[in-house]
Amino acid sequence: MIVWADGRWIDAAAPAALLADRGFALGDGLFETVLAEQGAPRFLARHHARLAAGAAALGLPPPPSLGEIEMLARETLHRSQLDATRAAVRIAWTAGRSARGLARDPAAPGALYVSAAPAPAPAHPAALVTARIRRNETSPTARWKTLSYLDSVMARREAELAGADEAVMLNTAGRVACAAAATLIVVVGDALVTPPLDDGALPGITRARLFDAGFSLVERRLTTADIEAAPAIALANALIGLRPAARLDGRALDPDHPRLRAAAAALVATE
Amino acid sequence: MIVWADGRWIDAAAPAALLADRGFALGDGLFETVLAEQGAPRFLARHHARLAAGAAALGLPPPPSLGEIEMLARETLHRSQLDATRAAVRIAWTAGRSARGLARDPAAPGALYVSAAPAPAPAHPAALVTARIRRNETSPTARWKTLSYLDSVMARREAELAGADEAVMLNTAGRVACAAAATLIVVVGDALVTPPLDDGALPGITRARLFDAGFSLVERRLTTADIEAAPAIALANALIGLRPAARLDGRALDPDHPRLRAAAAALVATE
Repeated sequence: MIVWADGRWIDAAAPAALLADRGFALGDGLFETVLAEQGAPRFLARHHARLAAGAAALGLPPPPSLGEIEMLARETLHRSQLDATRAAVRIAWTAGRSARGLARDPAAPGALYVSAAPAPAPAHPAALVTARIRRNETSPTARWKTLSYLDSVMARREAELAGADEAVMLNTAGRVACAAAATLIVVVGDALVTPPLDDGALPGITRARLFDAGFSLVERRLTTADIEAAPAIALANALIGLRPAARLDGRALDPDHPRLRAAAAALVATE
Repeated sequence: MIVWADGRWIDAAAPAALLADRGFALGDGLFETVLAEQGAPRFLARHHARLAAGAAALGLPPPPSLGEIEMLARETLHRSQLDATRAAVRIAWTAGRSARGLARDPAAPGALYVSAAPAPAPAHPAALVTARIRRNETSPTARWKTLSYLDSVMARREAELAGADEAVMLNTAGRVACAAAATLIVVVGDALVTPPLDDGALPGITRARLFDAGFSLVERRLTTADIEAAPAIALANALIGLRPAARLDGRALDPDHPRLRAAAAALVATE
């Protein structure tokens, strides 16, 4: 198959031609964004377990083994000359190729893509705004980290157009779900609370680390009133760790709140 | 940037390497599926107008001109040896490349991809089932034909696992929105009805042709009770034209209903 691809004719049967991949054509795949420090991917077993669980949920073939992915991640960092810095390794696992149309080819193997890029730590607390786009908690695109990521792209865009760093997403029932690309950690009274997965939260790696550390993080439904009254909010994901917020919709938050500092300390203790 | 891509190391800066494209990385782009007969794309001006409107809505750069896309579509059909048959031309317009992360590069040009594949007409009426995944009518992925298409992939998969051909999708409010990859046309009493765009329907090319033909198609909210009582339902899209349904959730429908035959005749009259 000869196709027009961004300025030239290419043979889509060639291995480097991704145009026939359903990940590109239909967002039919998953990805992980893994923190790497000095050439070493961090918490890769957790990322691999989530990738495998997502593949099973979406009906994709199981991804390559943890060992193979770790080898490729390290080699990608090395070949990208990123093995002496803080970097992000992106691992995509797609439904591979199929004939035209929505139906997958049940015999098609999945396809793996690994790339790496510099990922400096965020330099300051985040300014948040609540996005208009709702997160569809009935969809696997909310429950898993899929290549159909446009809702998050557009929510982040809403935040950036408003001069903020990140968006808070509500679900279709109007409850708080997550940030565009992070777990929300909210101080509610004396508790540190994060929304449950069935409200549209992604099962985040850092979120899971906080739960597994026995830290007093509580999973509970959150309303917009909860976040409007919260004295402090933080974002959590594998790349940023825990990043406090300085504002939500223009209202000042405490980025040095003791509950957030305790959570950050608990995270360090699990490393 | 050297990346691992489906079995080998490639240079992602090479033009054929799509891995750095945000369409692949994040589903950040749009596509059109255009019917071609004997090497000629049909209704391409309508497709181009929708692509341009979607790009404006998503904040993407405007796509290349209709003339340029028509030239590339015809050339793709020719190079794919599909200029003597019924085919589908797929046109993808993406946000192009950016640094890692959700934020687009405002200076990045978009990227265009054109491919073609055989597209025989459907041979029989469709069996439909109602999908569990809801269509997120608050999201641009419902309003535009985006590369973040996984909800439709998974809805179609539900249908196929149930032995059916296509899925009916409800929106988050429980109203009828559309099929996984088609407009729904429903006989309700004496009327021929299709859901409004703000219930999560895509502004379909065939849907627009029916409206523009002055045919008596009515845009009206549809409940599950409406489709459970409907004597006849059809699917409409640019590739299949109008395809009647034979069943919905196991209940028989009339694929030869006079209102559907009249709609099919109206479509032929606009060609």
